[in-house]
Amino acid sequence: MPGADAAAGAAAAVPTTCDALVIGAGPVGLFQVFQLGLQGIAAEVVDALPEPGGQCNELYPDKPIYDIPAVPVCTGRELVERLLLQIRPFAPRWHLGQQVTQLQPRANGGFDVATSTGQAFIARTVFIAAGVGAFQPRTLPAEGIDTLAPAQLLYRLPPAGTLAGRRVLVVGGEDAAVQSALALADAPDMEAPAAITLLHRRATLTAEPALLARLQACIDSGRVVFQVGQVLSVQQAAGAVAVQVADAAGQTLDLAVDALLVQLGISPKLGPISQWGLAMERRQLVVDAARFETSLPGLFAVGDVITYPGKKKLILCGFHEATLATFAAVALLRPDEPQLLQYTTTSPRLHQRLGVATPPRG
Amino acid sequence: MPGADAAAGAAAAVPTTCDALVIGAGPVGLFQVFQLGLQGIAAEVVDALPEPGGQCNELYPDKPIYDIPAVPVCTGRELVERLLLQIRPFAPRWHLGQQVTQLQPRANGGFDVATSTGQAFIARTVFIAAGVGAFQPRTLPAEGIDTLAPAQLLYRLPPAGTLAGRRVLVVGGEDAAVQSALALADAPDMEAPAAITLLHRRATLTAEPALLARLQACIDSGRVVFQVGQVLSVQQAAGAVAVQVADAAGQTLDLAVDALLVQLGISPKLGPISQWGLAMERRQLVVDAARFETSLPGLFAVGDVITYPGKKKLILCGFHEATLATFAAVALLRPDEPQLLQYTTTSPRLHQRLGVATPPRG
Repeated sequence: MPGADAAAGAAAAVPTTCDALVIGAGPVGLFQVFQLGLQGIAAEVVDALPEPGGQCNELYPDKPIYDIPAVPVCTGRELVERLLLQIRPFAPRWHLGQQVTQLQPRANGGFDVATSTGQAFIARTVFIAAGVGAFQPRTLPAEGIDTLAPAQLLYRLPPAGTLAGRRVLVVGGEDAAVQSALALADAPDMEAPAAITLLHRRATLTAEPALLARLQACIDSGRVVFQVGQVLSVQQAAGAVAVQVADAAGQTLDLAVDALLVQLGISPKLGPISQWGLAMERRQLVVDAARFETSLPGLFAVGDVITYPGKKKLILCGFHEATLATFAAVALLRPDEPQLLQYTTTSPRLHQRLGVATPPRG
Repeated sequence: MPGADAAAGAAAAVPTTCDALVIGAGPVGLFQVFQLGLQGIAAEVVDALPEPGGQCNELYPDKPIYDIPAVPVCTGRELVERLLLQIRPFAPRWHLGQQVTQLQPRANGGFDVATSTGQAFIARTVFIAAGVGAFQPRTLPAEGIDTLAPAQLLYRLPPAGTLAGRRVLVVGGEDAAVQSALALADAPDMEAPAAITLLHRRATLTAEPALLARLQACIDSGRVVFQVGQVLSVQQAAGAVAVQVADAAGQTLDLAVDALLVQLGISPKLGPISQWGLAMERRQLVVDAARFETSLPGLFAVGDVITYPGKKKLILCGFHEATLATFAAVALLRPDEPQLLQYTTTSPRLHQRLGVATPPRG
């Protein structure tokens, strides 16, 4: 699904002109694409993650959701799959694994937009569906952390073999940390680290019982050392990393490792959006509940990133917001066209856009 | 599914006390029941139709709908089935085939409500999800129509055999009329009418090709007479009905029949709701878009029956409206409880209400 940008490649400096740019490929961003498509407006979609789905895929891919109307139960991943199927007729252009870093209103309307990978757009309308922000790994707040080399400080499990023969400190106590420790412990000899320590601030770990049982076996066999404590500081020490840890009893402990694999979960960052001079309240964009427009005309916002009287951070409310934002954008993009509400049950025009046959009248 | 009232039967005069009464069992009314249920509030549901589903079942049961979020396509009937499945954990009490005729605020809050079948309620909150109104058969505007006896003027196809041996005039040119004419024509001899005339104002009929082919066969065989024209007047004539018809050429034609079966479609009537002194605009209830409350505190309204800035008459918007109305109602019903937004992915309390297991943390 990614790849549109790979094709653009060398031409990244030439801005892509578009009617609509959607920032965020979570469920609300995806439904934004659907409503725009129904109105005949093609969308470019930018998201920080490498795949569409946002929180649903990142935070609860396998958890059941019960309050999507007319979907009695589905997992986060299934919800995303359903929405991707629904927007398929409208073939949005994906720009994934990148963040919108700049957004500037143009003199004659529309926006100059640029992303962290150098993509540039001239967009007539922009829809911020950024949720609670771009998902980024939660960083380790320890003295000296900035002095480590990229190979010494990892936030994602690297490809197999990268840590072969090295002493690795895995930091974290939830699923991701446990899974990483197990993946390293289970590696074939050629690819295995020399030592694996799992460090968590508490003695209790939060993961599936089956994972914890496997971890316990690794601890029993000495393949993994489990240490309770918090990293106080790190420093370079003759090619290795000297880690100072405060243990549960408050004692200081010195560890010598070659790499830290930090797995403290992901933390959303609103990032550059908060720098665009938009009206905000408590880190949320202020919009009106009739148009879902921010304080900049043509810049709409929907979903968890916004606030208005009565706002609830529910996916189903975002669907409504994306719908009303679309109608407001159509009025702006096609000011001379009368706004008629058409229904997907009966409108030949909507059927044509959806690529489906119009059923016979009856 | 109906029957709750049959059980209540003779005790209908004793009002049922409830926290929430939902008027209208269309898709938005059904989702209103869901959101109330998630908040631990049981609902009584009143609808004029004999089954839940409203417009979806009545107007487009077999037509595909494409714009329900995360449901790429479903028919009107399927949408209703999905919503009924979704609200099953909350077991609403149905009061179908009846209209709310009276609604009166009580001195200490809440409402006295009465229906056309004599059911009475004392409801702390009421949610009007009445769509475009209660669905009623479109009447035949002809002189003398009020003089006919109930057995002479029918608006729904009666049980098999009711019209045996009688001369029947079916009035209408769409699916329902064609289907009724065919049902009568196909009846076994014992139950068959003596004569069947289908009268429509135009020579073209609107129905599925297969139905029209079957009708043509009945016309060819003389089992059904098709007449183009409009009923001008009806009058009693020695136990029969004398019908005066203006044909396509403007000539007057006299028909002698025993019964008229009028199948001109259904026409929604807002009915008594417009008499309750609520703030209205163009036959819609005025609500605020934060609470979806009418001008009477505790009386909420959602879906096609309401208007507010930006309002679009789409089912998915009604889902949002029902959600926000629920939170406003909870604040009213349980004023001392802090309002925390809980998620169906994670909340044990919501899982308990849904009757599902809470998945392990992970």
